[in-house]
Amino acid sequence: MNLNRTPIAVTEAVERVVSGIAPLPVETVSYTESYGRILAQDLEASMDVPRFDKSAMDGFAIRAEDSAGASGENRISFKVAAEVPAGATSDYELKENEAFRIMTGAPVPKSADAVVMFEQTRQNGGSFSIRKPFEPGENIALQGEECRSGDIIVPAGTFINPGTVAALATFGYKDVQVHRQPVVGILATGSELVDIEAPLEIGKIRNSNGPMVESQLQRMNIEARRYALEADDFETLLQRVREMLDEVDAIITTGGVSVGDYDHLPKLYEALGAKELFNKVGMRPGSVTTVSMLGDIPMFGLSGNPSACYTGFELFARPAFLKMMGHDRIFAPVLDAVLDGDFKKANPFTRFVRAEIDYIEGRVHAKPAGFNKSNAVTSIAKSNGIIVLPGGTRGFGKGDGVKVMMTDMTTGIDHFDI
Amino acid sequence: MNLNRTPIAVTEAVERVVSGIAPLPVETVSYTESYGRILAQDLEASMDVPRFDKSAMDGFAIRAEDSAGASGENRISFKVAAEVPAGATSDYELKENEAFRIMTGAPVPKSADAVVMFEQTRQNGGSFSIRKPFEPGENIALQGEECRSGDIIVPAGTFINPGTVAALATFGYKDVQVHRQPVVGILATGSELVDIEAPLEIGKIRNSNGPMVESQLQRMNIEARRYALEADDFETLLQRVREMLDEVDAIITTGGVSVGDYDHLPKLYEALGAKELFNKVGMRPGSVTTVSMLGDIPMFGLSGNPSACYTGFELFARPAFLKMMGHDRIFAPVLDAVLDGDFKKANPFTRFVRAEIDYIEGRVHAKPAGFNKSNAVTSIAKSNGIIVLPGGTRGFGKGDGVKVMMTDMTTGIDHFDI
Repeated sequence: MNLNRTPIAVTEAVERVVSGIAPLPVETVSYTESYGRILAQDLEASMDVPRFDKSAMDGFAIRAEDSAGASGENRISFKVAAEVPAGATSDYELKENEAFRIMTGAPVPKSADAVVMFEQTRQNGGSFSIRKPFEPGENIALQGEECRSGDIIVPAGTFINPGTVAALATFGYKDVQVHRQPVVGILATGSELVDIEAPLEIGKIRNSNGPMVESQLQRMNIEARRYALEADDFETLLQRVREMLDEVDAIITTGGVSVGDYDHLPKLYEALGAKELFNKVGMRPGSVTTVSMLGDIPMFGLSGNPSACYTGFELFARPAFLKMMGHDRIFAPVLDAVLDGDFKKANPFTRFVRAEIDYIEGRVHAKPAGFNKSNAVTSIAKSNGIIVLPGGTRGFGKGDGVKVMMTDMTTGIDHFDI
Repeated sequence: MNLNRTPIAVTEAVERVVSGIAPLPVETVSYTESYGRILAQDLEASMDVPRFDKSAMDGFAIRAEDSAGASGENRISFKVAAEVPAGATSDYELKENEAFRIMTGAPVPKSADAVVMFEQTRQNGGSFSIRKPFEPGENIALQGEECRSGDIIVPAGTFINPGTVAALATFGYKDVQVHRQPVVGILATGSELVDIEAPLEIGKIRNSNGPMVESQLQRMNIEARRYALEADDFETLLQRVREMLDEVDAIITTGGVSVGDYDHLPKLYEALGAKELFNKVGMRPGSVTTVSMLGDIPMFGLSGNPSACYTGFELFARPAFLKMMGHDRIFAPVLDAVLDGDFKKANPFTRFVRAEIDYIEGRVHAKPAGFNKSNAVTSIAKSNGIIVLPGGTRGFGKGDGVKVMMTDMTTGIDHFDI
């Protein structure tokens, strides 16, 4: 029993965790399966965009010079000499006051240099007239105006969002290099835990941390494997964790991190030869969070208390997993928010308060999500962010400015910012 | 060819779409599969939490009265008379200056009323001493202090996040009622489109809208079905859409919404007997977005231009699908942001600019994501938000305040707020 834990600062704890993590090996996935992964290669333009001068509108391609002097009093007429449907082109050579009928996206034939929108014409059988002159290039998307072949469109390390998928498709990246996703093993410990269907005898509670952590992983598109203990003795635990080490890239245990007789984790880390990064953090809740490394495999010993477990995951496990995935922005965005409620407790240490976030007239509002103790489960049920109250502060009131960690976004920032 | 489209305001268009949408039928899923779904039932506490008075710490349960007068100069000693491990209880009756050894989460036996943390003791074999008096209830989580049986913890209509999953587990909701997810069919039209592996002949472009929209759906946990056209003629289109109507809850077509000869959508809607909600919106890009309803099935005719397609999806399709899923906060949060770049174009209509969002010292910063024309694909590749510039404004400069639609969050707001 180690009663002499020395708490370290949250920022230092986060730094110790992420500094030891390396991105997982690169693998190839289809671009249609790449959403939510992290690019392990630069997405480089494989061609100019547009690849050719193309019509930006549905209308008529003309020679701009033929429109000179057009006005409401002096409409100029054009004869439709040929058509250029989308997906095709035309070799026809325009003569004076002739035009192509052309669709959006179709190549503008060499002999034309401006496009007149349908809406800008008055039509008359196979002819139309216009009431204004057109400049060369008008309503034409010019070759290379968006990007040039070889331009880096999205650098390696970027989260692949729907727009990135569109760019992968555009540039012919049928297969895309991404870092492998971690497989994370979850082991909820504690002889007080029973399955959701078991009767709740005195002293028993249902295992909520396991499914919660699995959902936190699911929110990050990460596969979880749940493990169970048949007995709460040290040998069973050691054997189960040894099995997990063969099958997963990271381990999360919940419970068993406190100082009591029934807590086996320190002994476990010793038996495995794992390097303990810290076993106490100057924060509430989750002060007894422990993180160890066994080779490349991080082991997160999260608290058995749901709110502490939730917070420990978001603070330490999430950035570590994003780094494994190759992400270069691994930390949750932190925003200024208006506190919509009182939080009168003093904060001897950095305090993380599960919060209901709302967005009112462009500002972020944060309300402590109900009952706030580390063992609270109801307060995380509606929370979509975490209020960060600095250590050494004395309590906050409605209307005060606070910082909020945004836990429900795919976007991150590149430094830990609390 | 309908050249006389009358644009309606964006807000009106959004309202027309969502007002006709009804939540899909309710189905039951396992709580472990419920992340990302929407509750179709209130999550009601099935018991008090805590269910019994429990220790909030690892330590010793005592009778508070026995600690009266303890101080550094007058340490009071207790004898450990019994143990209460987590997941168990004890019927032992404490006598004066006796204590239970007790673990976090364990029931506090009736004869004790305070818990001393290990760290607050000096131990000596089977005894320990303390240097301060304890209040009744100290370090004890009291039955029902977090919530009472019957309390509504999370109301129907709420997005199920990891904390909600924990609450479902805690209260024994093995099965949970949620609305069925929509199945969305995607049909990219346009004879200019070729598959990602096909050679890019003049006039051809790769289909980027299909995979992009599929990823936008994936971001919402919605299943997409991709359909293809063998030929770009009206009969093929009509037949394919009739097939889709049997298989999906909503249809997204991309391309074919402009006014040109090769655009079949208006004819299609007519042939199907669909009710057109609008065919032009006062916005850039995406002004030619068309939305129709065929019975309960919305048909989104998004532009073939990638940026316009992306924007049309986020503005119209996303809230409609969230409403189908039973969500009561279907609109993307809109935040005040600092513009990190110039955007000098005038905005005759509401303009939506794909933006790279960053978070700097607590504030949202938004930078137009590269080249901004409706046909741009590279500008959406890195965008994680959309800058909203009101119609009738003249251009914005670096440092100006702008509004940003946050497109990468699971949280929503309950009204369209641009």
